[in-house]
Amino acid sequence: MESMSLDNPVFRVFLGHSVLVLFKTCLMSVITVAVYYGSPGEKTINKDDAGKGVRKNKKSEALANVERVRRCHLNDLENVIPFVILGLLYVATGPDIESATIRFRIFTISRFFHTIFYLFAIPQPTRFLAFLAGFAINISMIYRILIPANF
Amino acid sequence: MESMSLDNPVFRVFLGHSVLVLFKTCLMSVITVAVYYGSPGEKTINKDDAGKGVRKNKKSEALANVERVRRCHLNDLENVIPFVILGLLYVATGPDIESATIRFRIFTISRFFHTIFYLFAIPQPTRFLAFLAGFAINISMIYRILIPANF
Amino acid sequence: MESMSLDNPVFRVFLGHSVLVLFKTCLMSVITVAVYYGSPGEKTINKDDAGKGVRKNKKSEALANVERVRRCHLNDLENVIPFVILGLLYVATGPDIESATIRFRIFTISRFFHTIFYLFAIPQPTRFLAFLAGFAINISMIYRILIPANF
Repeated sequence: MESMSLDNPVFRVFLGHSVLVLFKTCLMSVITVAVYYGSPGEKTINKDDAGKGVRKNKKSEALANVERVRRCHLNDLENVIPFVILGLLYVATGPDIESATIRFRIFTISRFFHTIFYLFAIPQPTRFLAFLAGFAINISMIYRILIPANF
Repeated sequence: MESMSLDNPVFRVFLGHSVLVLFKTCLMSVITVAVYYGSPGEKTINKDDAGKGVRKNKKSEALANVERVRRCHLNDLENVIPFVILGLLYVATGPDIESATIRFRIFTISRFFHTIFYLFAIPQPTRFLAFLAGFAINISMIYRILIPANF
Repeated sequence: MESMSLDNPVFRVFLGHSVLVLFKTCLMSVITVAVYYGSPGEKTINKDDAGKGVRKNKKSEALANVERVRRCHLNDLENVIPFVILGLLYVATGPDIESATIRFRIFTISRFFHTIFYLFAIPQPTRFLAFLAGFAINISMIYRILIPANF
């Protein structure tokens, strides 16, 4: 049977979870803009964004907050994008639906918690544990993909 | 019918547009190097790149220009990579070719404009509007993918 | 024949190489943490990570080392993720297995060398040449994908 097909129930479950984490990743752009305009202080990342009367060379509260959101966004790129690509390859190896669903769910839930812990600056090791859960899922999918792989 | 097949006309249109935006994203690396060596001033991002007689701790014109290109590159990673992955999943849901082509075209054109606006520091809101068009396409594909998705 | 299927020998070779480079990319997160805790000095990227007695506004040896690993990680995102996506599309165009295997191998080997050259700060142009090899493979796959593409 074709793997990337709506007739494949594992692919439908993959669709749901990958879309959720990609939506969350895309939302980080919106949160960046919201935090940028919602924070007090100077805003001088790009010259063309700077309005009149803006002094330079002083890192404002707004920039510090935005940098936190951006690091969180970058962490998503480092983890969510590999998850979606690995998940697609993993679906093509024909896993049973129960183990695939568990893997996709643990990853999705852990990444939502990771974002909450990061954005609200919850003390460690909460964020690290959320990262670790998602990371472990990626490694376990890599292991499953390696079995039918050739070199 | 198989979705990721040259027999699928929607997939062929997806191929063309995703290759264009991925090519543009890859080109950012070349532009980074070109701006780096084309700009005057000190170049000290990496110790192993620094030649003799280079003073440290002073941000040069070259580095400022390079950082602009790098932010543009990062913005591509944040938007183009999700587009290509979402587009692949969207093609698998079997959209009609007219609405798929319109989505792919709007995204591709908006990202080329986004890069031009960013690199030449055209005053806002030009760049923001170009970003918004691409972002809206990604969200609309997420919505279409969610319909056949399971959890 | 279906392209993303274990019956397709080109897809199996793609699986092996893409999993290797994605595994290496995921490992960068672990290396970041290892370098962070293995280096002397102050560690103040995030407020919630800072312990007691940590002074601010002074870039420590630990942070400098971590930033090198992070730039290497970002370079992977810029090159490995496009490779895996382009590779998947390239496999769908039905290349013969010899030329596909050579492309995947050159890319994989060049990226492992790139990481070694970057992390151990081997003098240029070693890292640049490793980057160039991977970049050339991506461009050559873009060229092959463009042939059957529509717009």
